[in-house]
Amino acid sequence: MSLFITKTDTKLKELFDKHKVILDNAIKAVHNRTFYAQYPELPKVYGEIAPVEGEKRFKEQLNKPFSRLSQSSDSQLVSDEISPYTLQKLNISYPTNKDINSTILLSQKASQTWKHTDPQSRAAILIESLERIKNDFFEIAHSTMHTTGQAFMMSFQASGPHSNDRALETIALGYQEQTRFPSNVVWDKPMGKTNAILTKHYRCVPRGIALTIGCSTFPLWNSLPGIYASLITGNTVIVKAHPTAIYPLAIAVARIQEVLKEYNLDPNTIVLAPDNDTRLIAKEFAQHPAVKIIDFTGSTPFGEYIESLKNKVTFTEKAGVNSIIFDSATEMNPVLQNIAFSLSLYSGQMCTAPQNIFVPKDGVTINGEKISYAQVTAALADAIQSLANNPKAAPHILGAIQSEQTLNRIKNTTQLKAKIILPSQPLSNPDFPNARTATPTLLEVQPSDMQIYQQEQFGPITFIIPTDNTNHSIQLAKNIAEMHGALSCSAYSTDPKIIQNIAEEMADVATPVSFNLTGQIYVNQNAGFSDFHGSGGNPAANASFTDSPFLTKRFTIVGMRIQ
Amino acid sequence: MSLFITKTDTKLKELFDKHKVILDNAIKAVHNRTFYAQYPELPKVYGEIAPVEGEKRFKEQLNKPFSRLSQSSDSQLVSDEISPYTLQKLNISYPTNKDINSTILLSQKASQTWKHTDPQSRAAILIESLERIKNDFFEIAHSTMHTTGQAFMMSFQASGPHSNDRALETIALGYQEQTRFPSNVVWDKPMGKTNAILTKHYRCVPRGIALTIGCSTFPLWNSLPGIYASLITGNTVIVKAHPTAIYPLAIAVARIQEVLKEYNLDPNTIVLAPDNDTRLIAKEFAQHPAVKIIDFTGSTPFGEYIESLKNKVTFTEKAGVNSIIFDSATEMNPVLQNIAFSLSLYSGQMCTAPQNIFVPKDGVTINGEKISYAQVTAALADAIQSLANNPKAAPHILGAIQSEQTLNRIKNTTQLKAKIILPSQPLSNPDFPNARTATPTLLEVQPSDMQIYQQEQFGPITFIIPTDNTNHSIQLAKNIAEMHGALSCSAYSTDPKIIQNIAEEMADVATPVSFNLTGQIYVNQNAGFSDFHGSGGNPAANASFTDSPFLTKRFTIVGMRIQ
Repeated sequence: MSLFITKTDTKLKELFDKHKVILDNAIKAVHNRTFYAQYPELPKVYGEIAPVEGEKRFKEQLNKPFSRLSQSSDSQLVSDEISPYTLQKLNISYPTNKDINSTILLSQKASQTWKHTDPQSRAAILIESLERIKNDFFEIAHSTMHTTGQAFMMSFQASGPHSNDRALETIALGYQEQTRFPSNVVWDKPMGKTNAILTKHYRCVPRGIALTIGCSTFPLWNSLPGIYASLITGNTVIVKAHPTAIYPLAIAVARIQEVLKEYNLDPNTIVLAPDNDTRLIAKEFAQHPAVKIIDFTGSTPFGEYIESLKNKVTFTEKAGVNSIIFDSATEMNPVLQNIAFSLSLYSGQMCTAPQNIFVPKDGVTINGEKISYAQVTAALADAIQSLANNPKAAPHILGAIQSEQTLNRIKNTTQLKAKIILPSQPLSNPDFPNARTATPTLLEVQPSDMQIYQQEQFGPITFIIPTDNTNHSIQLAKNIAEMHGALSCSAYSTDPKIIQNIAEEMADVATPVSFNLTGQIYVNQNAGFSDFHGSGGNPAANASFTDSPFLTKRFTIVGMRIQ
Repeated sequence: MSLFITKTDTKLKELFDKHKVILDNAIKAVHNRTFYAQYPELPKVYGEIAPVEGEKRFKEQLNKPFSRLSQSSDSQLVSDEISPYTLQKLNISYPTNKDINSTILLSQKASQTWKHTDPQSRAAILIESLERIKNDFFEIAHSTMHTTGQAFMMSFQASGPHSNDRALETIALGYQEQTRFPSNVVWDKPMGKTNAILTKHYRCVPRGIALTIGCSTFPLWNSLPGIYASLITGNTVIVKAHPTAIYPLAIAVARIQEVLKEYNLDPNTIVLAPDNDTRLIAKEFAQHPAVKIIDFTGSTPFGEYIESLKNKVTFTEKAGVNSIIFDSATEMNPVLQNIAFSLSLYSGQMCTAPQNIFVPKDGVTINGEKISYAQVTAALADAIQSLANNPKAAPHILGAIQSEQTLNRIKNTTQLKAKIILPSQPLSNPDFPNARTATPTLLEVQPSDMQIYQQEQFGPITFIIPTDNTNHSIQLAKNIAEMHGALSCSAYSTDPKIIQNIAEEMADVATPVSFNLTGQIYVNQNAGFSDFHGSGGNPAANASFTDSPFLTKRFTIVGMRIQ
């Protein structure tokens, strides 16, 4: 007798067999942590037709209802989405339910089937959905570009292959975690003359409904891991996209629903729950007792509110203040070019972008020679300016500014008690003359101006801070990470002892450090299957993509014993 | 170059080699989940001298300072410990620090070494400590008996071999979780004409100081898993024993400190922090910002307070209300004897003891025949009474009542709106004429009397509840588990469909069920390496001994990248 009801069928088994190689490779990759990519990041790999079709689909979708979702709904909602490139509303409407309780009920009903669908079948469905999302990469790129302001190439990579890889990573680890213990055993205990024998059946029980609250800058990269992690562990998911970045998530949700439906599963296993400024519904969902898991990316105050909710398992990524510690190098220009690129990429609107650059006031050592602090500052300003002045490259690196708030924040930096080394300026984008843009500003503040540089200044705002020496730089970077959180840290030193010291000190505050990056690899980037994004060990995040608790906290193991 | 400083030496390596077989077997056992015991539960296995010496050590310790701890301290504290068997104070004093900040500082200092001690060396130290605690099993048994009121045999098993096994289980899983990912890799990404190559170093970073808040009834069984889980993952530990059950924990802490000292590590890696009624210090420690992890076993209000603390990782076990669902059986007497034993064991003062017995008002089916509800109730009362009336067995099963509060709770049941089927009476114990005892009381309440039976009535207090039918029984048991929590459930049925239904419904509320237990195996018991104790999926607990998050939530993985 099988103690538990498990749902699968021949079609699902065939689908699992089809995708078993992908799953096996992904499980290996998660544990090897060397380079691995199921979804290549170069657009040309996806064929000549794909870019054309993707753009066409994007253009046809504008000003129309989004009709690809298979979920149940009772109304339509016109979104607040505005392109940072054209400043035009996308004017897309999405299906929704007027009452959040209707959405909860749909999710609860779907849960009855999904929780009984075995991890193999769930993995098969979810990998199939990723394989189909692959066909949407170019439409996703355009939709990401025109909601977040990312440049096209980053939109493609971050919302396409990189998101899919991170999603696959959670499927792999989630599958492995649910199958690492046996599902049933005979427990045979010698008790003197006789033995006590029990048959034991273990089940991984999902917590219930998972809520994903999306963010405005990385709608897929930051949300797909939590969505797939919840689904592979048997939870149903409600996707509350950010009001200004619904479209990319809608495409992904539609694909998952399409596969569910084809395999006779309830498409409401995942439901898109869009909202707009007339009525924001994230808190209503978050507080609902049926919602047991919340994945959130966004501001610190809202993240802390999410964490404070009782009886919820939460995975949050909030604000972080990232540092660069510049001590020494063999060559200065490659260092400054790398830093300039990191600050400019998507106009500093990445959670991993550096904000504070700590440089000893006595200067840095380059190839054995002292270069003064003033020289470093001037050369860095030059490197940033040169990049922004490069008309061929700059628009494709800086992209656009996602929101008016960020633009205002940049403008307000002129009011700060700080020395402006490099002012921000609009960046002209020949393809999009109305684009909301701003080049990076570089400001000098003193170590004592903590109230300025110790909080996140989201956007292309960078502070350079003259310190007493490298130890002082390290202590400041460490304190900020401990008190205010950090998702990344970059350091340059030719001294192995200093490198070790930085590694030790920053490990203490659970902050990953990238050392001596030059060339085409940047501190902002985190690779699926290799880098853990966020550590959950400092205030910037309480979770990590993708460590084991990112999966195991989403279910409990319940054992049944039969004599 | 090794990026991180790691502490180990030849002596520690030798110790690891010595204990490698124990570790390997334990890792296998955790993943097999069949019967495994590193520490056998039969006292005779430990030799003839051990019991005599253990009792001698116990008697010599009474009325004296406990001088075996190697920790730093500035004063002595006389404990509130009173034997439930003699009602005499144990009159033992323990070393302590007047200011909790002194203890925090000791722990922080020890952390500087312990966090750099590699998982191998930590495993070696911790297994060695368990091997030495083995020599204390009989003293631990007496100390447990005379603080908790457990009978001698349970004291021996629960605080001795079973605790040690559960501790070893956390060492095994903690070691495995910290070594499952590589500690460094070369990441080599093809980028067109060139490759981007990074060396990556990963470190498991402990959260900091872990606080263990002990309970009055199972000082070791409930605390050692959290203590060892925190230690194997590199956290230092402060042990705030329950004021009435310090002695057993002091013995274990002393052994761990002894081993640390012998291997030139800081004995303050674990510090006993006793308190008594004149000043309770659990909250002071819990709220201290340096305390990052809290393990707690005890009341629901205090557990909810612990869970509400910001920026702490908490592992709580609170009150649970456990049910028995009686539907049918092949024979009635073995069922009722098993139930009677479960209710009587340690006078119902186990978190896994059943409280509510749901029986259809139309009776149960025994071997195809209907037996009326009245007959079942009478026969159960008889079975409980017979056990209590057996002078040879009863004192060794029921033990004593741990506290006056529990005794009062039993007395107050006569005031409940309930029909007394079997009143509680004192139990005479020839060895301890002053023992605080009470035989189990059986009360009948109606399904509508929820306010009575839906809360935990800790102690030998059982309710029998006539339901409409077995489905009604299941729904009541499920609702209670969902709303008020449950750590166990027992069910009797000969119908495979009903068994499957119960398994499904109770799995939904993350409650393990034991089916058709008769003979010498009881629902109260949870086996190390096989049963998950608590699921973390209902209000009775937010954690589970020993699932993977019980370990992985105690550290974060931080990756460093070097170009």
